[in-house]
Amino acid sequence: MLNRAPEPKSAKLSGRAKSRSRKPAQRREPLSLGVLDGHLGYFLRRIQVWVFQDFLRTLSRLDVRPAQYSVLAVIEANPGLSQSDLADLLGIERARLARMLDRLEKRGLAERRPSPRDRRSHALYLSREGQKALKRIKVLAGQHEANLAEKLGPEKRRVMIELLRDFGR
Amino acid sequence: MLNRAPEPKSAKLSGRAKSRSRKPAQRREPLSLGVLDGHLGYFLRRIQVWVFQDFLRTLSRLDVRPAQYSVLAVIEANPGLSQSDLADLLGIERARLARMLDRLEKRGLAERRPSPRDRRSHALYLSREGQKALKRIKVLAGQHEANLAEKLGPEKRRVMIELLRDFGR
Repeated sequence: MLNRAPEPKSAKLSGRAKSRSRKPAQRREPLSLGVLDGHLGYFLRRIQVWVFQDFLRTLSRLDVRPAQYSVLAVIEANPGLSQSDLADLLGIERARLARMLDRLEKRGLAERRPSPRDRRSHALYLSREGQKALKRIKVLAGQHEANLAEKLGPEKRRVMIELLRDFGR
Repeated sequence: MLNRAPEPKSAKLSGRAKSRSRKPAQRREPLSLGVLDGHLGYFLRRIQVWVFQDFLRTLSRLDVRPAQYSVLAVIEANPGLSQSDLADLLGIERARLARMLDRLEKRGLAERRPSPRDRRSHALYLSREGQKALKRIKVLAGQHEANLAEKLGPEKRRVMIELLRDFGR
């Protein structure tokens, strides 16, 4: 979890280089990814693991997970939206979203109010406390995104957002 | 889990379009992602969820998960490699890898043999059964990758592999 801290910025290859020099005669050739080298899914998983861990590391003092951040951010951007619209937009299963909202309500961050348009559903809002908490969370989430830009390269990050923005819509 | 099956190929927008037409007067404006729209981590999670589910769906009759497939593929490409080199290459925690190898050995797919170069470690190999199983797995994993290329667009897929190939190395 701490492998970012003392690492020099240019040492992207240091992990492998180190193990090479520690036991130079033990492997005759560099390792191959084999058929994985053609699987985008494999490369996505690798970066996703890093992103998830860096998010938790960077936001550790705020006790918030990526999915909770997504929910708070979308409620802030669309005050009054329904649970089902929120579930659709984020691709979260309804039962799981209901549990997340229970927890966010208990922490006093989000509120379910009766919907003025549909009495079977709720309209979602941030509480004043939730707005304040999200403000603090956003600062650290921005730091996390800056870490990712540094790790990946800002231009690659920009291109990838463009490539992925419409996926699944 | 079955949402790909009856869906026409051009209907990427059908989900949202449908909910629009079901209750046309209920939302005045399209939903916004808010601050998430600038977070690459958010878009990575969305595609990663799709990839994971499509992998399980496409390979369901073979009882293999993405991480097991990665392990088998790398052992095949590097017969005799050590557990620690495998853990480093795939970014898998050592204890978790040890448990995975236990299971793959029990299923008769992988073998740990004494290392000729280092008596504290093992050299990893696929069994003949493991080679045959991997051959079948690769066919369906190729189908899964083709699903992803169709969903994302083959050119975007190619560019993303190039962008991500060196991440974390």
